[in-house]
Amino acid sequence: MTNDPHVVIVGGGFGGLAAARALASSPVRVTLLDRQNHHLFQPLLYQVATAGLNPSDISAPIRHLLREQANVTVLLAEATRIDTAAKVVELTEGSIAYDHLILATGATHAYFGHDEWAARAPGLKSLEDAVEIRQRFLLAFEAAEREPDPARRKAWLTFVVVGAGPTGVELAGAMMEVAQHALREDFRVINPAEARVILVEGLDRVLPVYSKHLSAEALKALRERGIEVRLNTRVTRIDDDAVMMGDELLPARTVLWAAGVAASPLARSLDAPLDRAGRVKVDPALRVPGHPEVWVLGDLATIDQDGAPVPGVAQAALQGGEQTARNVMRSIRGQELEPFEYTDLGSMATIGRNDAVAVIGKAEFTGFFAWLMWLFVHVMALVGFRNRVAVIFSWAWSYLTFNRASRLITRKVPPTLLAHDDDAQPGARQTTGDRSTAVTLNPSAEARSAP
Amino acid sequence: MTNDPHVVIVGGGFGGLAAARALASSPVRVTLLDRQNHHLFQPLLYQVATAGLNPSDISAPIRHLLREQANVTVLLAEATRIDTAAKVVELTEGSIAYDHLILATGATHAYFGHDEWAARAPGLKSLEDAVEIRQRFLLAFEAAEREPDPARRKAWLTFVVVGAGPTGVELAGAMMEVAQHALREDFRVINPAEARVILVEGLDRVLPVYSKHLSAEALKALRERGIEVRLNTRVTRIDDDAVMMGDELLPARTVLWAAGVAASPLARSLDAPLDRAGRVKVDPALRVPGHPEVWVLGDLATIDQDGAPVPGVAQAALQGGEQTARNVMRSIRGQELEPFEYTDLGSMATIGRNDAVAVIGKAEFTGFFAWLMWLFVHVMALVGFRNRVAVIFSWAWSYLTFNRASRLITRKVPPTLLAHDDDAQPGARQTTGDRSTAVTLNPSAEARSAP
Repeated sequence: MTNDPHVVIVGGGFGGLAAARALASSPVRVTLLDRQNHHLFQPLLYQVATAGLNPSDISAPIRHLLREQANVTVLLAEATRIDTAAKVVELTEGSIAYDHLILATGATHAYFGHDEWAARAPGLKSLEDAVEIRQRFLLAFEAAEREPDPARRKAWLTFVVVGAGPTGVELAGAMMEVAQHALREDFRVINPAEARVILVEGLDRVLPVYSKHLSAEALKALRERGIEVRLNTRVTRIDDDAVMMGDELLPARTVLWAAGVAASPLARSLDAPLDRAGRVKVDPALRVPGHPEVWVLGDLATIDQDGAPVPGVAQAALQGGEQTARNVMRSIRGQELEPFEYTDLGSMATIGRNDAVAVIGKAEFTGFFAWLMWLFVHVMALVGFRNRVAVIFSWAWSYLTFNRASRLITRKVPPTLLAHDDDAQPGARQTTGDRSTAVTLNPSAEARSAP
Repeated sequence: MTNDPHVVIVGGGFGGLAAARALASSPVRVTLLDRQNHHLFQPLLYQVATAGLNPSDISAPIRHLLREQANVTVLLAEATRIDTAAKVVELTEGSIAYDHLILATGATHAYFGHDEWAARAPGLKSLEDAVEIRQRFLLAFEAAEREPDPARRKAWLTFVVVGAGPTGVELAGAMMEVAQHALREDFRVINPAEARVILVEGLDRVLPVYSKHLSAEALKALRERGIEVRLNTRVTRIDDDAVMMGDELLPARTVLWAAGVAASPLARSLDAPLDRAGRVKVDPALRVPGHPEVWVLGDLATIDQDGAPVPGVAQAALQGGEQTARNVMRSIRGQELEPFEYTDLGSMATIGRNDAVAVIGKAEFTGFFAWLMWLFVHVMALVGFRNRVAVIFSWAWSYLTFNRASRLITRKVPPTLLAHDDDAQPGARQTTGDRSTAVTLNPSAEARSAP
């Protein structure tokens, strides 16, 4: 054990990992703690949720990523509170003292005061979320195949995505593709291609952080693929089998949430000014005002640059992590700090097979070329050779076969997901010797064309 | 809808899938139902449990495998009871009538009257089991890294596998390999290579169904790899932190179960003679005595051949499925049935990197050559081109790098797994300004050499 200053990093996402790596050759002891054992490449999480990639393709154990960095200790632990006076991070068990603290615990979606919607309309932030969404998505087709009532079958085949930012757009695009291609031949009663995917956005365009031109291009591409986009529309109620959007109560069994931003609750335990989303208002060096040894970065922080807030994207967290590592060392050496300057390297969102929108500097790209750029950038950004090869292979296979690699339902099926109301199921349990309707739960082939 | 006879197959494992495929061009309507959406290649399940393969590498959606077979309907449903008088399979919801019923729901492990052990010592039969075991296995190292008490740290690093059949041997071998190689550089406090893997067997040799020569070779290979094998030893108690085996109470946090056979409980609802493990005693054509339209095969059935029971292996289920499909058609046509004849194509078990035992006919193989055979046979037996490539890639990568592809903990961590007893943790919450022990949950480096 050395007496080097102790830097504690909370969160092993893009920001925390970048900070730990940038401190590799500095005379500090680093402890990185995360409640998950893995770093997650979040930009591809929607592909796990839509059965295209395996969870392990886009993640890697944090301690393995940092194994060669002798001054880093990785702990699987959950931080519950920061005691800035005692300079201690409290964990669910025990605590850990710091000289410098780097908080990078990120943000999740916000249900705008309707936290009770979380169970019905899961968001997409962790691998657990992605596997849960994959399960609901695939089970909906299974339930539809077994559902004799046409109206309720339709509700099983209606998928609502709330929020048309990059996550919502990519989720909706991928779900439509799975329904139209990957599942095409697999069912006997339903036609998966008849599934409806409805993308709901409260603002007046999709991808609101992009230019109006790109928003319009993305909207066109989504509609060409059959996705129903509802703009200027707010969700006001989510029932078990329907969603109220605007004036319409739409029967839909599967609702996914990709709207709003709520910073990790850890920020609240800091004695610091927060914005409405709970993000810490940091100083230009990403420090908490009044606590020069507490640094906050990525989605957990909010900071303006050139009159606009720095966006909550992976690049901002990465750059913030590297910047903070440098500033922590400057602070330890008594040098003046560098203010954080976010360099926008561009952003991109894919809409599906052969189609994406991208902006790099002032240049905008759409269609097949943007999609190729998207592929290239995301593969190169993945951590680790193995993940890169696995993702390239899965993508090439999906592209050529139109199929998906991970159509797995591995958790216990929640009983409600496959439950039928007894009163609405006249045909069920009709187990007479009538061989022509022997599969009593299975609507007959004629039901497909029923109204 | 045709009026062809309706064949209902329960279970989409090796036997059920083989039966469905063999009925492809026959004038019958087939309904295959399974409570999972996927067919599972069980012989490689232990590699998912030990982080070598992804769940989706060894599984595929049943309805996708059968998509081109027009006379098959696949249902995600759980059978609860067979009503042989009404010729109906009752499901958790609804029911389904049959003309011929093929039961292939398999078997699980038996806890010898100690079902309360199931939670502490999970068995390995489903992907859910494998992910649960992977999680416990990886979490044990995380907990050990955080545990200040040397005795309790040792209990976290002690892994007990009960039962030295192929599953137990392969699990123990793979766990040792992960501890010694894949995790080698990743921890700061513990040395994962100090983990103990203890394989307990009630009989007097490992792999008891193999010849004495191969058992001895396997035992030697296991011991060379550092696995402690306890023969003629029974587990009589499993506590939260210790296992009673023979006269010894061994502190161990992780216990895995790979012993005994218990047939799927569905067999009990048949009006049929069962053996002690609950398997149906079928006639030479694999029918239930007294019910010529009910067929049982694979691990759910028991039948003698040449004075010995047909073993509960994939090949027996596969062959039984194909045979039964032929016999169902003979029965429908009023032809005489063929008795089931099991052809032993050989069996093999891997002990780890470069080492396996195999028997084919009268020839026995050990070591590197047996291992190559094992690799080849298992890759070729996998369903689907994509799975084959994914598995080959994962194996090649693991072989060359000594790492593992899927070191993922994705479920919520059960609080007990990381819980510390308060009374035994004098160092915890010691959050003074003493920077040299700033990480209070982390034993100091000296602790590694503590007694």
